Amino acid sequence: MSVTVVELGPRDGLQNEPTSVPAAARVAFVRALAAAGLTRIEAGAFVHPVRVPQMAGSDEVCAVLAADPALAARGVRISALVPNRTGLARAVAAGVREVAVFPAASETFSQRNLNQSVEEALQTAGEVCAAAHAQAIPVRGYVSTAFGCPFEGDVPVAKVLRVCEALLAHGVFEVALSDTIGIAHPGQVRALLREVRLSLPVSRVALHFHDTRGTALANVLAALDEEVTTFDACAGGLGGCPFAPGALGNLATEDLLYMLHGLGLARTVDLDAVVAASAGIELAVGHALPSRYYRAAQARLRM
Amino acid sequence: MSVTVVELGPRDGLQNEPTSVPAAARVAFVRALAAAGLTRIEAGAFVHPVRVPQMAGSDEVCAVLAADPALAARGVRISALVPNRTGLARAVAAGVREVAVFPAASETFSQRNLNQSVEEALQTAGEVCAAAHAQAIPVRGYVSTAFGCPFEGDVPVAKVLRVCEALLAHGVFEVALSDTIGIAHPGQVRALLREVRLSLPVSRVALHFHDTRGTALANVLAALDEEVTTFDACAGGLGGCPFAPGALGNLATEDLLYMLHGLGLARTVDLDAVVAASAGIELAVGHALPSRYYRAAQARLRM
Repeated sequence: MSVTVVELGPRDGLQNEPTSVPAAARVAFVRALAAAGLTRIEAGAFVHPVRVPQMAGSDEVCAVLAADPALAARGVRISALVPNRTGLARAVAAGVREVAVFPAASETFSQRNLNQSVEEALQTAGEVCAAAHAQAIPVRGYVSTAFGCPFEGDVPVAKVLRVCEALLAHGVFEVALSDTIGIAHPGQVRALLREVRLSLPVSRVALHFHDTRGTALANVLAALDEEVTTFDACAGGLGGCPFAPGALGNLATEDLLYMLHGLGLARTVDLDAVVAASAGIELAVGHALPSRYYRAAQARLRM
Repeated sequence: MSVTVVELGPRDGLQNEPTSVPAAARVAFVRALAAAGLTRIEAGAFVHPVRVPQMAGSDEVCAVLAADPALAARGVRISALVPNRTGLARAVAAGVREVAVFPAASETFSQRNLNQSVEEALQTAGEVCAAAHAQAIPVRGYVSTAFGCPFEGDVPVAKVLRVCEALLAHGVFEVALSDTIGIAHPGQVRALLREVRLSLPVSRVALHFHDTRGTALANVLAALDEEVTTFDACAGGLGGCPFAPGALGNLATEDLLYMLHGLGLARTVDLDAVVAASAGIELAVGHALPSRYYRAAQARLRM
């Protein structure tokens, strides 16, 4: 079994930090993560810079990375989030060669996050896919609120499957079932995956957990039993400070790798080097990062 | 399958806090935890008050609890840690009717923590067991450093088994394999339990995890697959502040219960009531508690 960690720190992580990090520091962060052996890194989002100021400058970040021969030599896949064809065009202009769309499984969240119904968002995703594929650019599809909606609560599995199937029909290479509000627990992960696997090949399914209630790593363990092999994570647990109200931190790459390494998985990624990458970005975001492994490693260094 | 949570917040949690909490607040904490439905609560430690000032006043705490008819009516088992017969005598004088001994699996830790070799500590534990059993007091046996030693690193399974078997021969009703330094991961949990089960009945095995590297809850999930049904936890994740160097927080009761409830387990414990108990003790310890579920619940209340 081979497991892939998709590193989202530079995008989902930094996007949810109160401080905007300058482009140069974001580029350095991506390079450090790639040097650690991470091979899939989401580096930016081509969304409206007024709405998501943390992702302003994604053009610059991605352009520098696209021109970096060291990343190309390592075969690192740099991707970016795009909400629509306008975003895709900006991403392509910046040299991005892999993108991600992000419809939601629940109607209210879709309306609030994208200002579109679920079906409208799927149509937009289809347009992005068609335009991207015409340029040989692969597309990932996030499925937001797959484990619960902040407005609607439980999300029926049928709605999750509908979004997955529509995205796969549009040709996405992977659907990332996303626990947007960090509410998933292993019992739910097992139940959802068992239903999903009746309809989709599990090799096309990735999982995206937030550690809001501390369950993210246990969710990964449950998903490994269901043969999922692709997991999203953010270095340092970026994207949430545990002492801020409504903390929404992503599963930390370090915590994930510590567990995976203990299972003999993902050994090509150097955990110490990820810690070093996190230490660099911690200075830029200006608060202690919440990853437990990272904090333990930093404490050990200080002793 | 029936799962029991052993609540250690008032002992292992508060023992590792920088601030000493007054006896009255500790009593109120235990009462709140019992009201939440927790049925096994470690309330104090009869160790030297100069060495562990946080546990000074355990006599008073336990005496008040022993005389509480509400706890008796609920069938709550209040226990206390005792290092030797002197500690046992103090515990008995305070009305304690269940105690725990705590030898280690590794030699260096045993010498540093107990000033005894492993074999000497097992002999002391045997004396405590004999004296306790003569008074019909059941004894639990912790096995410290069962997953790794801060001084020796890896601890051979044979050493862990030697301590378990000696304790069971002394008549302890349960051995709690303890990840003293929070280094265990699910791969190790599975491997250790599979060896342990060849020698001991799994019904006599409890697990005690610290969340130093974020793996505690995933470790529980792995252990459930191996049919372990008793888990230690501390309300709020007491015993470690994630932003302190060398943080050593216990697995948080809230995080554990959220996962267990999702698996249909331990439903007799009220998670909201545990959060309320943690909120009370948080004021007493004077810093934000690290449990992720607890923090998310508190953030929701503020919104």
